[in-house]
Amino acid sequence: MNRSEIIQQIRQKKSYLCIGLDTDIEKIPSHLLADADPVFAFNKAIIDATHEYCVSYKINTAFYESRGTKGWESLEKTVEYIPGNIFKIADAKRGDIGNTSSQYAKAFFETLNFDAVTVAPYMGADSVKPFLAYKDKWTILLVLTSNTGSSDFELLQTGGEYLYEKVIKTSMQWGTPGNLMFVIGATQSDWITKIRTISPEHFYLVPGVGTQGGSLHEISTQAINKDIGLLVNVSRAIIYASRGEDFAEQSAMAARAYQQEMSTYL
Amino acid sequence: MNRSEIIQQIRQKKSYLCIGLDTDIEKIPSHLLADADPVFAFNKAIIDATHEYCVSYKINTAFYESRGTKGWESLEKTVEYIPGNIFKIADAKRGDIGNTSSQYAKAFFETLNFDAVTVAPYMGADSVKPFLAYKDKWTILLVLTSNTGSSDFELLQTGGEYLYEKVIKTSMQWGTPGNLMFVIGATQSDWITKIRTISPEHFYLVPGVGTQGGSLHEISTQAINKDIGLLVNVSRAIIYASRGEDFAEQSAMAARAYQQEMSTYL
Repeated sequence: MNRSEIIQQIRQKKSYLCIGLDTDIEKIPSHLLADADPVFAFNKAIIDATHEYCVSYKINTAFYESRGTKGWESLEKTVEYIPGNIFKIADAKRGDIGNTSSQYAKAFFETLNFDAVTVAPYMGADSVKPFLAYKDKWTILLVLTSNTGSSDFELLQTGGEYLYEKVIKTSMQWGTPGNLMFVIGATQSDWITKIRTISPEHFYLVPGVGTQGGSLHEISTQAINKDIGLLVNVSRAIIYASRGEDFAEQSAMAARAYQQEMSTYL
Repeated sequence: MNRSEIIQQIRQKKSYLCIGLDTDIEKIPSHLLADADPVFAFNKAIIDATHEYCVSYKINTAFYESRGTKGWESLEKTVEYIPGNIFKIADAKRGDIGNTSSQYAKAFFETLNFDAVTVAPYMGADSVKPFLAYKDKWTILLVLTSNTGSSDFELLQTGGEYLYEKVIKTSMQWGTPGNLMFVIGATQSDWITKIRTISPEHFYLVPGVGTQGGSLHEISTQAINKDIGLLVNVSRAIIYASRGEDFAEQSAMAARAYQQEMSTYL
């Protein structure tokens, strides 16, 4: 899915919502546990109920790997089930030496048909470039994350700038606004104006709205660019809107509320 | 597997060799491809042939994920097959916000019975601590990696020291020499004496010997401490020693040669 297709979907749906399918089998409604694959049954219902309000789904691999092969099967089925006009993100935070990153890129872009994968920058150029080598696929690099630990290293000063700024500037030499996005936590709104100055054209994947407390209003009013340039992710506040039989309807209502707020910023 | 058990195994086998099962289905001997699970068949033969020369196996998850559910099955069978007195490392380079890192820790320490997992430090404390919370399990933090990209961020100056030094010092406040190891590339021998001064007691997992060109002699003579404190990994130079019918025997000969050199440094 290329950049103009993403922008077209956002304008059409008046939404830059990404829904995080961080599906924890211990948190899904109990009536689903009788299903042969409760996690896929849950995801399928959530996708059916919410797909008109979002332009992207983000699957965090941790919640699937924790269940071993069974979890990996649920993941495969979920990716296949997502409609073709929706941007599919593997939130995997991978990164390794070059020949190994190539295997991860193959895993998410070929074996699984994701459009994008999140990548950790620590190991540098040769750990990131194998992902960027895929045409019409996206690398979403961790830059300034939404968690408290972001202050440990991401906000260290190096050569008169923060490490996260250095990560943005260096990686902009590896990829383009057409194949590279950045993860910027919604809880980091103090820094967002500066980040937009450094990278005016790039899309940001923004986690941290919802349960983590980031503000959709702040991130939207400060970071939207001429092509929108944002995918704002909400996971728990949408998919666990209810644990009752009406979980899918409740998740649709939560997703619709985010979409409607987003439409006011576009 | 606790620290004294690791040290005991090293002294008993006169080896601190870790063998990396980076098994690529495109590189294994062709006669194995008829097997129902060629990757597991290959790993089983390599483990049978080499286990007396090593104290650890390291499984890089990328080579398994690239084959999807089938790969994850090969991975599960391989971990189960490794003898109990051998230290089992998931080279997964994971790391996410706290509640998600907990899911990764569950994946590798509970669902799969690994002793250790490699973790990326970029996201800071709450991304690493969920792994450290497991008793008798190990977190192996990326510090100074063996690849060329290590110079992009790991070797940046911050507050009068390199970022990798800051990662060592900060993480030593999170874990102990009993549950935290560091990844130090064998290709980084210029820095090893200083690293040993900063962290005199910690074990290092050292990749980069063999195909990547690092010197076993240099890393051993500079970094062995009173408890040895090293696990030196070799992957391709052992497991792909031959692509013929004799691949297992050849891998055993290669592993034995490393073990014998190691015995001279102990």
